[in-house]
Amino acid sequence: MATAEMEFGDTDDARLSMALATIGTDIDQAFDRLLPVPDDTRAPLFEAMRYAAIGGGKRVRPLLLVSTATMLGVSRQAAVLAGAAVESIHVYSLIHDDLPCMDDDDMRRGKPTVHKAYDEATAVLAGDALHALAFEILTFEEVSTVPSVQAELTRCLALASGMGGMAGGQAMDMAAESATYDLHTITRLQQLKTGALLTASVEMGAILARLPHEGRAPLINYARDIGLAFQIVDDLLDHEGDEKKAGKALRKDDEQGKQTFVSLMGADAARQQAQALIDQACGHLAHYGEDAGVLCDLARYIVERDR
Amino acid sequence: MATAEMEFGDTDDARLSMALATIGTDIDQAFDRLLPVPDDTRAPLFEAMRYAAIGGGKRVRPLLLVSTATMLGVSRQAAVLAGAAVESIHVYSLIHDDLPCMDDDDMRRGKPTVHKAYDEATAVLAGDALHALAFEILTFEEVSTVPSVQAELTRCLALASGMGGMAGGQAMDMAAESATYDLHTITRLQQLKTGALLTASVEMGAILARLPHEGRAPLINYARDIGLAFQIVDDLLDHEGDEKKAGKALRKDDEQGKQTFVSLMGADAARQQAQALIDQACGHLAHYGEDAGVLCDLARYIVERDR
Repeated sequence: MATAEMEFGDTDDARLSMALATIGTDIDQAFDRLLPVPDDTRAPLFEAMRYAAIGGGKRVRPLLLVSTATMLGVSRQAAVLAGAAVESIHVYSLIHDDLPCMDDDDMRRGKPTVHKAYDEATAVLAGDALHALAFEILTFEEVSTVPSVQAELTRCLALASGMGGMAGGQAMDMAAESATYDLHTITRLQQLKTGALLTASVEMGAILARLPHEGRAPLINYARDIGLAFQIVDDLLDHEGDEKKAGKALRKDDEQGKQTFVSLMGADAARQQAQALIDQACGHLAHYGEDAGVLCDLARYIVERDR
Repeated sequence: MATAEMEFGDTDDARLSMALATIGTDIDQAFDRLLPVPDDTRAPLFEAMRYAAIGGGKRVRPLLLVSTATMLGVSRQAAVLAGAAVESIHVYSLIHDDLPCMDDDDMRRGKPTVHKAYDEATAVLAGDALHALAFEILTFEEVSTVPSVQAELTRCLALASGMGGMAGGQAMDMAAESATYDLHTITRLQQLKTGALLTASVEMGAILARLPHEGRAPLINYARDIGLAFQIVDDLLDHEGDEKKAGKALRKDDEQGKQTFVSLMGADAARQQAQALIDQACGHLAHYGEDAGVLCDLARYIVERDR
């Protein structure tokens, strides 16, 4: 609890601070249980997985999933485990993105990246094992005893992670150093690279609740809006943020001459656009009233955060 | 068809040659359909995935899955797609294992490895995208319209690929350069590194056929025996094989001083052990009579192959 509280103690909103601290503890405990270090030479692999997965990060994706699910009446325990599955995908993607052949980052979440703390081979493998773990989790009976829910969760997460989602967005991002992207293409890139997994987090909450497809549109629209706002703010923070607060190197986009929302729109217009998206996102949830409180708090936190 | 025929024209058994050629074509066609190159900057990612997945390899895992499934009455179309899912996992693992930080191999399946033909970042990402693709495929209606089958396939493949299976075995293998393994530990390593996915291939055929758990034991025992034989023969080929036929560098275990079945047992005893395992494997399938013909041919091919 201590780590999460310290980490998020600087947000204004008491309800959101509590929600962030609680999800941080829950996800840490879930990974602690999922990743017991074995008494054989696989130990360094498990230690690297634990190093990356436990005790860090904003846990935005699990919080989206759990807040959506509990709003719709799902047990917290099931939602937290499904949240750990989404976070497992997110963490694997961070480990691989940080590799020397990718973004070559030395720091992440305020500590050395996995390939720095261990070695490159262990980092590749820890990412791969977290990737498989995500899908293993989704077939646990504690997530759901309904096979169609397990299958739909799997499909949703696989689509959001692969070539039509996160990995596809990462490929577009890698090409951004040589290509010149307009605002439309940057938006598409971000919808794949970060938006797909954020949207999947919300949709998986709805799947757990067995909400029919036709009822999911407002939730998915909410997720798309906050996903785009999240990325715009990430670009703003990369452009003008504090490296110490961020716990990682910043201004890499500027150095590499990459187009971003900020370079294409200017910082002021980007900030206004993010705010407008958040207002729109909360509007989609009007129907849920106070029950959507944490989801709206989280949306506002996304634009107001300083790291 | 041409590639597969040429590649397997040197096996004696006409029935097996036909089965290998046919599965080769089927899996190539499946990946061709699954991986249409998009008209955007994700194109290099898709091209790298196609480069690795299409037109190479023995397709042992898909053949195990399809032969088991068709023996049990499953439609070939469904089994081939599930076979493509298993092969997708196998191919991603080869791409990552070949990376400079892992085995640092320049050649695979007779052509440059993915990081040589493209670059390291694309190789990491292509592996990740094939990993996600595997789980996406398993939720296709063409694989099964029964959600519990989709969920069970997912669980089986995730367990076999992750820290308790292939990735765990790879971690043990990485530690083998500094640790000294006895025969028991080498066996355990191989059961995880290669055995788990081979066994999953057979079990997924049984899952597709909705064979109850209690009926799967002979099939799983068959798979475990051929898995171990497969690895023993791999060690023999690494020790005394022909690099040109193998399409990759050999004698790396010897150079690195790694313990293998051959170094621990001697080449003759290892060859006898592999043969005994194959006889035992076919014995497990006696109940199925002629219907298990291809599975027994495949078992024999595993010890008789020269690459």
